[in-house]
Amino acid sequence: MIKLSEISTRPPSDVDEKKLKKLTDDYEERIGKLNEILRAAQKHSLLVILQGMDGSGKDGAVKNVFKDCTPFNLSVYAFKKPTEIEFAHDFLWRVHQQVPAKGDIKIFNRSHYEDILIQRVHKWIDEERVAKRMAAINAFEELITFDNNTTILKFYLHISYDQQEKELKERIDEPDKHWKHNDGDWKERESWDEYMRCYEYAINESKIPWTVVPVDERWYRDYIISKKVCEALEAMNLEYPK
Amino acid sequence: MIKLSEISTRPPSDVDEKKLKKLTDDYEERIGKLNEILRAAQKHSLLVILQGMDGSGKDGAVKNVFKDCTPFNLSVYAFKKPTEIEFAHDFLWRVHQQVPAKGDIKIFNRSHYEDILIQRVHKWIDEERVAKRMAAINAFEELITFDNNTTILKFYLHISYDQQEKELKERIDEPDKHWKHNDGDWKERESWDEYMRCYEYAINESKIPWTVVPVDERWYRDYIISKKVCEALEAMNLEYPK
Repeated sequence: MIKLSEISTRPPSDVDEKKLKKLTDDYEERIGKLNEILRAAQKHSLLVILQGMDGSGKDGAVKNVFKDCTPFNLSVYAFKKPTEIEFAHDFLWRVHQQVPAKGDIKIFNRSHYEDILIQRVHKWIDEERVAKRMAAINAFEELITFDNNTTILKFYLHISYDQQEKELKERIDEPDKHWKHNDGDWKERESWDEYMRCYEYAINESKIPWTVVPVDERWYRDYIISKKVCEALEAMNLEYPK
Repeated sequence: MIKLSEISTRPPSDVDEKKLKKLTDDYEERIGKLNEILRAAQKHSLLVILQGMDGSGKDGAVKNVFKDCTPFNLSVYAFKKPTEIEFAHDFLWRVHQQVPAKGDIKIFNRSHYEDILIQRVHKWIDEERVAKRMAAINAFEELITFDNNTTILKFYLHISYDQQEKELKERIDEPDKHWKHNDGDWKERESWDEYMRCYEYAINESKIPWTVVPVDERWYRDYIISKKVCEALEAMNLEYPK
């Protein structure tokens, strides 16, 4: 059982920043090469789930970690507020449609976990539904793992309350970040503690484990995520078809 | 635990055929009216799953039972051999896309159960995968039930070995049935006992119950299915919106 308040949002004090940045470059390059073989072999797939509070750096992680990948078989899907037709179905309906085919990498920027996060924080769903949805999520993730050779990597981007304030302010102050500004983010920030409680539940009740990524320093975020992604691709023992 | 060999494929001997046919007409008419309210209310949905050996009368059941329904919110999806892109995903990927939206009736002519029937009979999948798929099916059906107010009705169209022969022969002899003739059906017939064993497993391991429908007499098939469908729609307590 993890408790987010006990996990630092900063890199360990004894790490060598320069060395880790060099390692990150290596991982990113290897990810690019492994992605080519994944595409050619068409036997496995990779699903990367990114969750975190506004300003925790989900977009930046995608941009950096996969920068050496061709887009032939890699794509990002950003889950927003459900559409009318999506609302007329179960919460996993739109999610299931987006899972990667064999040979593909899919990145979920936000995901089905929102359906037990924002919806729970605002009490749009009751606790019974939360528990049933959590069980459905576990069954769904198991399904795509055993029946489609999908490796699922889940990252919770762990940002501090103070760091989030800085990030959100930058969106107001810097012209090239202004398009990301959203009053709603400041509103959600008021429910910080409740969000942490709901994230802890999601992380602790998940059968497929999460990686809690300290993101106050972006270079450390990229190091952790690129390392995990690279190792997951290597564990597939990918080979070009004969 | 049901055993198909112990269940008759014929109507009980004491039923009044004329009376049941009259009741069937009534049920079908009520289904048509309830379907209108279902569409207007947009709160519930109905999924009807039809499974059975070739010639067991799945098409005829659809044609008769829903003959008084408008097609605005009712449709049939016939599952055939998966396409290349479907094969590159888990077995429920294509199925989940077809579940009914709130306000709709969807009829599955064959279904996700084929993935533990024909695939198991021919040993395209091992027994471990069969068990995992069965668990995934139960979780999936539970999901659309609790998260989208979907009522699921599952019908196994129970035909005798001899009756199937008659039906398949008619497809050769009668001009308006000839388009349905398929050499593959006669091939599958050779695995009859194995199919029965796999159907029994699917029926017995399902959390949401099946109705075993004796279909050697088509009028009795229509009576049983229309009765169940009508009762399920009535149990929704549908009302036109105020």
